[in-house]
Amino acid sequence: MGIKIGILGYGNLGKGVECAILQNPDMELAAIFTRRNPETLTPRTKDTKVISISEVNNWKDKIDVMILCGGSATDLPEQTPKFAKIFNVIDSFDTHAKIPEHFNNVDRAAKEGNKTAIISVGWDPGMFSLNRIYANAILPDGKDYTFWGKGVSQGHSDAIRRIKGVKDAKQYTIPVESALAKVRGGENPDLTTRQKHTRECFVVLEDGADPAAVEHEIKAMPNYFADYDTTVHFISEEELIKSHSKIPHGGFVLRSGKTGLHNENSHIIEYSLKLDSNPEFTSSVLVAYARAAYRLNKEGSIGCKTVFDIAPAYLSPKSGEELRAQML
Amino acid sequence: MGIKIGILGYGNLGKGVECAILQNPDMELAAIFTRRNPETLTPRTKDTKVISISEVNNWKDKIDVMILCGGSATDLPEQTPKFAKIFNVIDSFDTHAKIPEHFNNVDRAAKEGNKTAIISVGWDPGMFSLNRIYANAILPDGKDYTFWGKGVSQGHSDAIRRIKGVKDAKQYTIPVESALAKVRGGENPDLTTRQKHTRECFVVLEDGADPAAVEHEIKAMPNYFADYDTTVHFISEEELIKSHSKIPHGGFVLRSGKTGLHNENSHIIEYSLKLDSNPEFTSSVLVAYARAAYRLNKEGSIGCKTVFDIAPAYLSPKSGEELRAQML
Repeated sequence: MGIKIGILGYGNLGKGVECAILQNPDMELAAIFTRRNPETLTPRTKDTKVISISEVNNWKDKIDVMILCGGSATDLPEQTPKFAKIFNVIDSFDTHAKIPEHFNNVDRAAKEGNKTAIISVGWDPGMFSLNRIYANAILPDGKDYTFWGKGVSQGHSDAIRRIKGVKDAKQYTIPVESALAKVRGGENPDLTTRQKHTRECFVVLEDGADPAAVEHEIKAMPNYFADYDTTVHFISEEELIKSHSKIPHGGFVLRSGKTGLHNENSHIIEYSLKLDSNPEFTSSVLVAYARAAYRLNKEGSIGCKTVFDIAPAYLSPKSGEELRAQML
Repeated sequence: MGIKIGILGYGNLGKGVECAILQNPDMELAAIFTRRNPETLTPRTKDTKVISISEVNNWKDKIDVMILCGGSATDLPEQTPKFAKIFNVIDSFDTHAKIPEHFNNVDRAAKEGNKTAIISVGWDPGMFSLNRIYANAILPDGKDYTFWGKGVSQGHSDAIRRIKGVKDAKQYTIPVESALAKVRGGENPDLTTRQKHTRECFVVLEDGADPAAVEHEIKAMPNYFADYDTTVHFISEEELIKSHSKIPHGGFVLRSGKTGLHNENSHIIEYSLKLDSNPEFTSSVLVAYARAAYRLNKEGSIGCKTVFDIAPAYLSPKSGEELRAQML
């Protein structure tokens, strides 16, 4: 019997989890839970049960870990504390500023239910955070850099779509190569927002919309675009579907630090991701941490945790002996 | 009062630990222990005590963590189990094939003394191992690649120095850029030893030695050079001292993996290090894990551990709250 996983929410992330479970022989998908009418939802894998979220309490003893695949804006702040009382849970809560509050809410709930919750799992927060903590602990005298992309920003694409006259849009965040090169070269540059990333937008207009007005509105949008060098391309709907339907992403975390009695030696630690599918990679991280949550709960380690609190061995299906012999 | 660190062995690694402690305000150097006559040893930092290893038992209650800075060939297999009975210890044991045996010996000793030991700490084994375990857990369907360099290989430099007619030598291990590019491009190549690294040697000859004979002997040396494209440069002793006295190193750990219902999406995870000083960077990792050993022992978590068994938060001087607010 494998670890029985439940998926709550069946968008891109939920679909990614469904696929990732197939790659992990020690896991099995127990059911997908949805707020929609279960009959309207067709899972990607055969014979997968789809259950209404209203029946989730009946699954208390049939799910080892529930992976919450909702959004950070409104779903997870409510769902994670709620379900952490009933299940071991994993979420990908990524509103950085609200993590402390979310952690406290989930911690209280998980302890009440004797469950283990791991929040903010994915790649940023997640793998990027891990690289920040390791690199900072090793090189206390140094400087951190995070670059994102090249990849699709869902939030920026949505912001463009809300503009009047825009039918559809995709926005790519692109790291500035020359800035990356300076960091890699150990120059420790101070970089402005504009110097780190550019933004490239592919926009489909509604009939009769004014391209100049739309372009101006995009480029002037505070927070999203005003502080960046932004390029806008107007393309047909066919072209958008043909060339911009994937959801790639990635990025770079670097720490540049000094050692030596007089700081005479420089070191660069760099971690990077190049992802064809942002949601599928995030899902794969969620599934690895589901294994950890299952094991930690078996050991009686309850409450809310983040990637910082989990020893790496808990993520691997291999035993300690195998890991030491094969991976150390 | 900071965490009281002892350094056992005062070579490049011990000197690196001495410097790294200065960068960590929660730590202090209690003493350096040496097999040499303590009077013959001058620490890099002022007022540092140097103690004969024969007196180490008197320091049982004055040291929180002893960092063992000896070599893997003969020092650590004997020292780590011996001192793990008396102190919390950290070592950088890097003979990959013998790690399981070393682990068992140290585990037995540490448990006997109620101490915490962390072995094989550094960057490979160490940070590279961490990246292998995380990447494998996230992308079970994938392929691992490790490239080393550009950097000085002490073992290969020593092998050249043992050749008759060679006065001194430095050997650089260099990753093959085109092979790295193929891996980054997601091609999943099968790479031979020769295709992954080249070796570049800078050799100072004894008076009257035959360069052609030395070059032939280097290039034909089994294991060390025969399987590689090797370049040999003969230079003066002055030039070797001037241009090849540093001990840089580094390397790349990559995992290329697939996700999706039909493996339709590719992902590349890459971790790389570019180090001016191999021993100082390794020392900095040792010191971060010393903090973990100290805390784990306080919690009653005894026995032998590796980097796989340590949650990242234990390495950082920051609290859980600070880490979640600042680094997640």
